[in-house]
Amino acid sequence: MLVSALVTSLAINSGLCVLFFTLYSILRKQPSNSEVYIPRVLAEGGYKKSSHFNLERLIPSPDWLRRAWKLTEDDLLEASGLDAVVFMRLINFSLRVFLFAGVIGVFVLLPVNCSGDALEYVDFADLSNNSLDVFSISNVASGSSLLWIHFSAVYLVTIFICCLLYYEYRYICEKRTSYFLASKPQPHQFTILVRSIPVPVGSSVSDSVERFFSEYHPSTYLSHSVVRRTNKLQNLISDAKKLYSRLVHLKSDPNKQKYKRSGTFGLFGPKVNLQDHYKKTLEDIEENVRLEQSEVSLAGEEVRAAFVSFKSRYGAAIAFHLQQSTNPTRWVTEQAPEPHDVYWPFFSSSFIRRWISKLVVIIACILLTILFLIPVVLVQGLTNLSQLEIYFPFLTSILTITFVSEVITGYLPSLILLLFLKMVPPVMEGFSSIQGYISNSAIQKSACSKVLWFTVWNIFFATVFSGSVFYKISIFLDPKNIPAKLASAVPAQASFFIAYVVTSGWTSTSSELFRIIPLLWSLMKRPFTDSKDDELEVPAIPYHSHMPRILFFVLLGITYFFLAPLILPFLLVYLCLGYIIYRNQFINVYAPRYETAGKFWPIAHNSVIFSLVLMHAIAVGVFTLKSIPVASTLTFPLPVFTLLFNEYCRKRFLPNFIAYPAESLLKKDRQDENDPTMPEFYSKLVGVYQDPALMPINFSANGDRLNSPLLSASSSSHS
Amino acid sequence: MLVSALVTSLAINSGLCVLFFTLYSILRKQPSNSEVYIPRVLAEGGYKKSSHFNLERLIPSPDWLRRAWKLTEDDLLEASGLDAVVFMRLINFSLRVFLFAGVIGVFVLLPVNCSGDALEYVDFADLSNNSLDVFSISNVASGSSLLWIHFSAVYLVTIFICCLLYYEYRYICEKRTSYFLASKPQPHQFTILVRSIPVPVGSSVSDSVERFFSEYHPSTYLSHSVVRRTNKLQNLISDAKKLYSRLVHLKSDPNKQKYKRSGTFGLFGPKVNLQDHYKKTLEDIEENVRLEQSEVSLAGEEVRAAFVSFKSRYGAAIAFHLQQSTNPTRWVTEQAPEPHDVYWPFFSSSFIRRWISKLVVIIACILLTILFLIPVVLVQGLTNLSQLEIYFPFLTSILTITFVSEVITGYLPSLILLLFLKMVPPVMEGFSSIQGYISNSAIQKSACSKVLWFTVWNIFFATVFSGSVFYKISIFLDPKNIPAKLASAVPAQASFFIAYVVTSGWTSTSSELFRIIPLLWSLMKRPFTDSKDDELEVPAIPYHSHMPRILFFVLLGITYFFLAPLILPFLLVYLCLGYIIYRNQFINVYAPRYETAGKFWPIAHNSVIFSLVLMHAIAVGVFTLKSIPVASTLTFPLPVFTLLFNEYCRKRFLPNFIAYPAESLLKKDRQDENDPTMPEFYSKLVGVYQDPALMPINFSANGDRLNSPLLSASSSSHS
Repeated sequence: MLVSALVTSLAINSGLCVLFFTLYSILRKQPSNSEVYIPRVLAEGGYKKSSHFNLERLIPSPDWLRRAWKLTEDDLLEASGLDAVVFMRLINFSLRVFLFAGVIGVFVLLPVNCSGDALEYVDFADLSNNSLDVFSISNVASGSSLLWIHFSAVYLVTIFICCLLYYEYRYICEKRTSYFLASKPQPHQFTILVRSIPVPVGSSVSDSVERFFSEYHPSTYLSHSVVRRTNKLQNLISDAKKLYSRLVHLKSDPNKQKYKRSGTFGLFGPKVNLQDHYKKTLEDIEENVRLEQSEVSLAGEEVRAAFVSFKSRYGAAIAFHLQQSTNPTRWVTEQAPEPHDVYWPFFSSSFIRRWISKLVVIIACILLTILFLIPVVLVQGLTNLSQLEIYFPFLTSILTITFVSEVITGYLPSLILLLFLKMVPPVMEGFSSIQGYISNSAIQKSACSKVLWFTVWNIFFATVFSGSVFYKISIFLDPKNIPAKLASAVPAQASFFIAYVVTSGWTSTSSELFRIIPLLWSLMKRPFTDSKDDELEVPAIPYHSHMPRILFFVLLGITYFFLAPLILPFLLVYLCLGYIIYRNQFINVYAPRYETAGKFWPIAHNSVIFSLVLMHAIAVGVFTLKSIPVASTLTFPLPVFTLLFNEYCRKRFLPNFIAYPAESLLKKDRQDENDPTMPEFYSKLVGVYQDPALMPINFSANGDRLNSPLLSASSSSHS
Repeated sequence: MLVSALVTSLAINSGLCVLFFTLYSILRKQPSNSEVYIPRVLAEGGYKKSSHFNLERLIPSPDWLRRAWKLTEDDLLEASGLDAVVFMRLINFSLRVFLFAGVIGVFVLLPVNCSGDALEYVDFADLSNNSLDVFSISNVASGSSLLWIHFSAVYLVTIFICCLLYYEYRYICEKRTSYFLASKPQPHQFTILVRSIPVPVGSSVSDSVERFFSEYHPSTYLSHSVVRRTNKLQNLISDAKKLYSRLVHLKSDPNKQKYKRSGTFGLFGPKVNLQDHYKKTLEDIEENVRLEQSEVSLAGEEVRAAFVSFKSRYGAAIAFHLQQSTNPTRWVTEQAPEPHDVYWPFFSSSFIRRWISKLVVIIACILLTILFLIPVVLVQGLTNLSQLEIYFPFLTSILTITFVSEVITGYLPSLILLLFLKMVPPVMEGFSSIQGYISNSAIQKSACSKVLWFTVWNIFFATVFSGSVFYKISIFLDPKNIPAKLASAVPAQASFFIAYVVTSGWTSTSSELFRIIPLLWSLMKRPFTDSKDDELEVPAIPYHSHMPRILFFVLLGITYFFLAPLILPFLLVYLCLGYIIYRNQFINVYAPRYETAGKFWPIAHNSVIFSLVLMHAIAVGVFTLKSIPVASTLTFPLPVFTLLFNEYCRKRFLPNFIAYPAESLLKKDRQDENDPTMPEFYSKLVGVYQDPALMPINFSANGDRLNSPLLSASSSSHS
């Protein structure tokens, strides 16, 4: 790619960013858009709609920037939980890394690269027609002693990142502990989920659980609630909900047509009062629901799984950590999620079935990864215009126009990739949900890793090693030659990834601020619904699509910082944008839906370690290729020590992210002993792990609109 | 190798076996050898020495065979513990596998191979000059449909082995549980070892432990004993022991010279009463020991580790399973070994130090493996006589003698390998002991895996891929081509491994019966010591040298059964020998030194799984090489399903081999509640984890010979 193509791409995207920022600054002040831009503030009642118009509303104002900038970590922790803090710390961490790497890259490596003379066609007078390779390591001659500067940079940055990783892990670990120690008694701290419950003939799951835990945990066992198969019920209830909201709508709007003909297509037959009709159907459905509920409550529909609550956190932890039965595939225990975080559909309980579904999901992920290569290969074709011209000769006339060719090489490939990538997180979330996880948080955590590795494989490796799937796989089956192959392929794609950072990174972040899709959606449905009466749903941040993106840019930055330091300024801009925008979104848009208390951090940590080792492999290959084998050999200890460092972190910090230690649990339990509200908490605990589908419903009796417990409970657990 | 060479080797080894058996049958009846052949029976007092001679003693009698044959599993369990049962079941398991594979191999595959015509120089009239390859798969022509018989055999045997593995794992798992449920209260069930104890300034380890466990485990905590650094003390005590035994010896033998001169070399100076002299020195040493003991008991010599005992097994299990501190590298808990199984020297406590010593041991193992290749390469040279003749032309005249060349190709290589291999288990045990294990059993278990992988790498792979170390490593760095390389290299070494089974397997087992080294040792020292008064030490079976050997033969059998089925009869003979001989040794020779309750089985299981997958890889390669790619493709699912099966077993059975489940623990604890002997047990428990070096000694005061507690305790923990 030429410098001019990059400049074109840069111009387009900077323009887009400025446009999005300006539009956002105006649109967010329009009351009609408040549901899109400040749903959280609305839900918390912190916003008064003033319907009279004033001029100020049309002038873009940067006050939101100041507010986002001033947000402290403690405020964020209080408002959005530890997960949001961890997310922001990831951006913070990346900023620090690339500030350090950026200084080295831009002020040391970039001049060194430019002063090289390996590429002969460098013409500084006409920069825009130069290849971007001038700024990369490709421009340094083989065997040049200048490469030792790159070597030192690799060492320096690795040490810096490892130190930072250590402090970050320790900090988040401490935060997690203090978060736990400061928390109020919460149901999931006292509860475990038991699966694969063996049921003797003639007994029910409930009896079996009661007998087992009264026998083996008599002093701490409190209560249990068996999980039931409620798929049918859930469908009925969602029907009822739809009908109910239509009814409410009808009532509130006196102008609407309240009669329709009862015949075919509503065209023939006698006129019927719509309101009565809806009410009648709703009552029928509710009757069905009640019937079904009492049926489900019978033993026949019991799933062999139950939430078992204990009188103390320590008691629950003991039951979770110790293998209960002599057959380890029975009475399988795991920590319970928060009650509203439970993912009730697909509640698989059998050990074997979960194992098989896990295998199936792995195979599905591999298939998806392979099939996804098709669009990637197409995109690759676009960056090589000459190839495109060979395959489609009729395009030659268009492609000769400079602007068109620059847009095509600089912008279009990334955009297409971006659109395809948009579909991946929901698909991966779907995969994770059938894998047998019991909570939305666990599903998103698993989807986060899946999306991350998918991105690394399908964007990084597929772009670097363009070719057939089998060619790519064959590279990894020949580990000895990986560094050499990486070294020849990775630097060649530097310009593509610089463009990728600008297009995908900048645009996606600023469109995140602008919330294009929710805005469009809100605009489309506004004429048809009365927004005032509609249930306001505050969105939760989908960590599984945002975190992998940031981590992938970190990977790009780490692997390319010594090859093509030009990528670093663009990355820094991206991270700065992200820093301010995500803070703003946490204040105004996203409400936390669950709290994993920082369990996403280990994913980020592992990803950075992987990036480091990948960078080392590339460095080994590059130094060999540039014929300074001594540097190549001296780079070898780096991945070894990085992996040892990772192993140490795994031992030192990871256990705290899986379960809380006995020390903290007992401290909390002892605090509670003197708490007068505990009896009340225990009595609430008994019923809290109840499938929302099994709660009594009564829409039809509600004369006026009530925010029924069912609606709010199920909306948060099903979405 | 020619058939005749194999026959020579066979003849030599059969002769040796018969010789060993006959000699054993005679020698074991001589009272003077009773310490070598029936130390266990002696120690248990079940043998009356009759010194009067009778003729029967000189006639070999097979009564021991009958006794060994009749031994039931329950008897074995009672006499030698569950580990011995597991060991015998491994032989049993192998026998069943190779009986099944043997029937298929000898009656189906062998005729098929012989009927092939790929090798042209087959001459059935003069069998002895035929290459052994006639009986192997090499003789089947490429593309022949006969190969589908081999394919079916691979499938059949894999399924058979997997089924057997499953039932065996389940059986041993059940045995382990019932063993635990039937056991008396034992100190190690109530105790855990805590390491990396943080000690505040101005406090001692003991205070720290007391405070922590009284605070966090108030209801179950019983007592603790801090580990102390006693290396110096141990040296002093061993000096005292030596002196004491010399003194006892002197006293008991009135004929010995009791005076020596006190000057240089005992030649000049006044005569001294030796007995008085020894007594004086002994008293001095004992004084030193007492001083040192009181010094060690002070806080300065405390190691940051302690054995912490609890009032119930469940309490100990909770403390073991739950992470205690917020820093997971502190208060690291693990299950305590049996008190006499504790390995007191090298008691490292720091988390980092143990981690580093583990890394050092891994590197040392790799180095040893690489250095060991030198003798293996030499041995390889011997099998290719023609090469040897080229390198050492002066040997040509000797090598032309048929018998010499047959001995050299058929017998010598295996013998040299055998001798070198003899040194590996003690070295590996040494490595394991500095790795930070706290018990002899754990050290032997770890050494067992090390020796096993060492054997597989250095005997199997080094023989198969003869060449430089780097060539071997390069093969494994190119995983795609492993099957092809295995397929071309493995069948070529069939004759070597058949000879290896006969020489190494048969000879080592029968020499195990004959106990050559202990016999020689006993013969050598008999003139110098009075055996009657000597401390009788009953040996324990070194599982870490015997188990890997059997498992390696299983690997050979599984990988070669379809390539060269001729190996199977020889293996079966080996296993039958092992079956009868080890049973005899368990009755007469070995006493259990510790009880892991079957923890060795997972090693055996994993090894068999590895053998299966290796066999599948070879099969894939061979079928490709023999140009039936369909069979090659159809073999692919086998390793996948084998690994999945292994994964299932790991989840289903392995947890029970690491710790007992809550169900069993509570059952046992409740049994004890009504046991009137428990208070006494608890009071004993307090002092049982005491370093033997810290126990009071008093040799000099013992006028007559006493079996002092120190002697027996330290002899069992130091050897």
